[in-house]
Amino acid sequence: MDRTRIAQLYAHMDEFGDKTVTVAGWVRSIRDMKNFGFVVLNDGSCFKDLQVVMNREKLANYEEVAALTVGSALIITGELALTPDRPQPFELQAKTIVVEGAAQPDYPMQKKRQTREFLRTQQHLRSRTNLFRAVFRVRSVAAFAIHRFFQERGFVYVNTPIITASDAEGAGEMFRVTTIDPANPPLTQDGKVDYGQDFFGKQTNLTVSGQLQAENFAMSFGDVYTFGPTFRAENSNTRRHAAEFWMVEPEMAFCDLEGEMDVSEQMLKYVINYVMEHCPDELDMFNKFVDKGLKERLQHVATSDFARVSYTDAVKILEDAQAAGHKFEYPVKWGIDLQTEHERYLTEQHFKKPTFVTNYPKDIKAFYMRQNDDGKTVAAADCLVPGIGEIIGGSQREERLDVLERRIEELGMDKDQYKYYLDLRRYGTCHHAGFGLGFERLVMYLTGVDNIRDVLPHPRTVGNADF
Amino acid sequence: MDRTRIAQLYAHMDEFGDKTVTVAGWVRSIRDMKNFGFVVLNDGSCFKDLQVVMNREKLANYEEVAALTVGSALIITGELALTPDRPQPFELQAKTIVVEGAAQPDYPMQKKRQTREFLRTQQHLRSRTNLFRAVFRVRSVAAFAIHRFFQERGFVYVNTPIITASDAEGAGEMFRVTTIDPANPPLTQDGKVDYGQDFFGKQTNLTVSGQLQAENFAMSFGDVYTFGPTFRAENSNTRRHAAEFWMVEPEMAFCDLEGEMDVSEQMLKYVINYVMEHCPDELDMFNKFVDKGLKERLQHVATSDFARVSYTDAVKILEDAQAAGHKFEYPVKWGIDLQTEHERYLTEQHFKKPTFVTNYPKDIKAFYMRQNDDGKTVAAADCLVPGIGEIIGGSQREERLDVLERRIEELGMDKDQYKYYLDLRRYGTCHHAGFGLGFERLVMYLTGVDNIRDVLPHPRTVGNADF
Repeated sequence: MDRTRIAQLYAHMDEFGDKTVTVAGWVRSIRDMKNFGFVVLNDGSCFKDLQVVMNREKLANYEEVAALTVGSALIITGELALTPDRPQPFELQAKTIVVEGAAQPDYPMQKKRQTREFLRTQQHLRSRTNLFRAVFRVRSVAAFAIHRFFQERGFVYVNTPIITASDAEGAGEMFRVTTIDPANPPLTQDGKVDYGQDFFGKQTNLTVSGQLQAENFAMSFGDVYTFGPTFRAENSNTRRHAAEFWMVEPEMAFCDLEGEMDVSEQMLKYVINYVMEHCPDELDMFNKFVDKGLKERLQHVATSDFARVSYTDAVKILEDAQAAGHKFEYPVKWGIDLQTEHERYLTEQHFKKPTFVTNYPKDIKAFYMRQNDDGKTVAAADCLVPGIGEIIGGSQREERLDVLERRIEELGMDKDQYKYYLDLRRYGTCHHAGFGLGFERLVMYLTGVDNIRDVLPHPRTVGNADF
Repeated sequence: MDRTRIAQLYAHMDEFGDKTVTVAGWVRSIRDMKNFGFVVLNDGSCFKDLQVVMNREKLANYEEVAALTVGSALIITGELALTPDRPQPFELQAKTIVVEGAAQPDYPMQKKRQTREFLRTQQHLRSRTNLFRAVFRVRSVAAFAIHRFFQERGFVYVNTPIITASDAEGAGEMFRVTTIDPANPPLTQDGKVDYGQDFFGKQTNLTVSGQLQAENFAMSFGDVYTFGPTFRAENSNTRRHAAEFWMVEPEMAFCDLEGEMDVSEQMLKYVINYVMEHCPDELDMFNKFVDKGLKERLQHVATSDFARVSYTDAVKILEDAQAAGHKFEYPVKWGIDLQTEHERYLTEQHFKKPTFVTNYPKDIKAFYMRQNDDGKTVAAADCLVPGIGEIIGGSQREERLDVLERRIEELGMDKDQYKYYLDLRRYGTCHHAGFGLGFERLVMYLTGVDNIRDVLPHPRTVGNADF
């Protein structure tokens, strides 16, 4: 079937004017005006719909089509008439309409406004609504923008493993991956579960981060990035947490913390510009119906320098705000981990733009971050954005074998587990840095949608793994 | 640090001639010739190395550098001298060399040739060898080519879930994802493991395919694709199987089997051309040291039409070969699933090019494939390529609600599990098709590397989840 996408009609309308084309898509609305009828059709190729005009006298199955309901699938051949004087720039005058699949009358995606909570129970259908069609296109375009950004700069894309026997951060609760039947697990002689008989011959989990493995490849390619799913088995039911989410983790050899922040900032601006260029209709819709300041904020971020402030100075700013009467749920003092309320105060109230907070106390950051000369802080940089809080967590990595070994021992970690990681410091170590971007948080930021469940095609959260 | 990538030197050598540049990378070899010394440096930005010349009289730390061993990390500032009369087009005359990280003498990646089996025990270091640096760059470039191919054609990238409560094909062994401790599982009143208390409130597994969920989005966007990890808990130890591998799964509304084959063929050709254009040095190396016919074969595939033959005709071809004396381990007759030996005979001996085999017996294919009018076969198309066998499995999907329901019942499957899938046929169904490409098999095909363990950064197979 030689069909034309509606996106092509809009992109090249002059070429298609007065031409006969075949389109295929789904009914957004149907009106029967006696002698004439109108079908609004969407084929998913762009945000915009196509208006189709049916003439009762000329269309053989007018009655059949006019009786259809929203959601039905049609193949329509007709002539494209340019209509420069009307709100829509053209319409299709139908010659033939093939009813490919009628929607049954109990179709849950009716034209009326539905709550996002209800739509979460209809994940297999919700991408047919304006909101979710826009969200998932922006998600796709942003994902491609990320690949383009890194590939244009010579970064090598590395698929770090999903199933892993190590815990990347010693943080995050992990999901076990197993073929052992818990109703009847194999046991060792002393009565413990014998993971030696599990599929991989040991305990394995779903990865919480690909960073440590990405470093393996940064030490040969120089610049690499991952972009894949990561997991947390945390029993938290917030708008910002999911059990399964996608992360982008670049890792750069011969790069320090300043360089890492530069790349983070360039990447965010690149993705924002790319989405503004490729999804203008979607952003208009979000700006109108989801988040009225969205476009202005994205424009602002794309064109202004991000703020950079040390953790120590950030704490002073927060303490000053506290002293001046600002109420935080969690009181601020040097040494605490910043909470979302603190992060949002810094980026929304104080700096009013994306803000890197650098050089955090070492005790609240991961073992692999490079220790600063003050003995108290590490070369970390979290990027905070208005409305979200932390969107990127980055750091320079500890490249000094002796310092890293000492830190691993200090924290009581199992040094044997990190043999490979330490090998990178034994054989041609170099200063290097990297960051992790939570992809869903970026999509939330780009769309103004404030619940992570609404930017994941089929979200996985505590108690939810449907579809 | 303002450093120049070696790839940039090769791309713009005329601009850099006689200029002072700083490069950073790892030592591939060092020769001390008394008054002069040579360092061959690679920074991972391209396959080629940089020759660095050191003058004992001019370089302050000549002795220190000359004593270094392979794998050490250096930052070198010097003047680029064009050398059009020598094998390499330029060399860097070092002014200063900073020893960033020396390699300890027990560095396992010495210059001598090492077996791939040994290198599999050194996965954190093996990408520093020529072979693996080439493999993983081709992998990255091919992945990007796939994204480009689909994005240029308006396909929407969908991240289908990794953790799933359903079994996409009723095929493939699955890994359980759980937070239940098998040493002490919660039990129901009748003594069974109570998965209601597991993280998601039910049994969940790692996905074997994102197809069914991709169809959800094809019914709103028209054209979509997935590109993500999939899993099989199969106890098979072959060169072609891994427990964790990446799949590309496009799904296209208003598309039939012919259209599906067209897109498959265009995609393969696009990726081959893109890799030939962007990785010429890597392909030269594979062609020289891994697979002598590689470049000719890729060129041939990129420029010739793929063969298309029905399963029924393919079986006749194989039976004729059998009758003519060709020995197959598994005898051929209508109804059998084709084995790799049969697939390879068809594509290597008979057609001598990539070959689609279409319309397989329904009993050896999945429930969702569209039934042909003969009542015996389904609209499936497997794409076979020389040296590998099946690389793509595609089909037109059964879009008729009644036919699909009947098939699910016939096979004794649980209809309730497929409610969402059947909903797509209730609400605006349309003919549609899609395919699955095993990404590692594609990388094997592009590189000539014949073991899947050598095209995965950190392969997961039975008993192996290291690194």
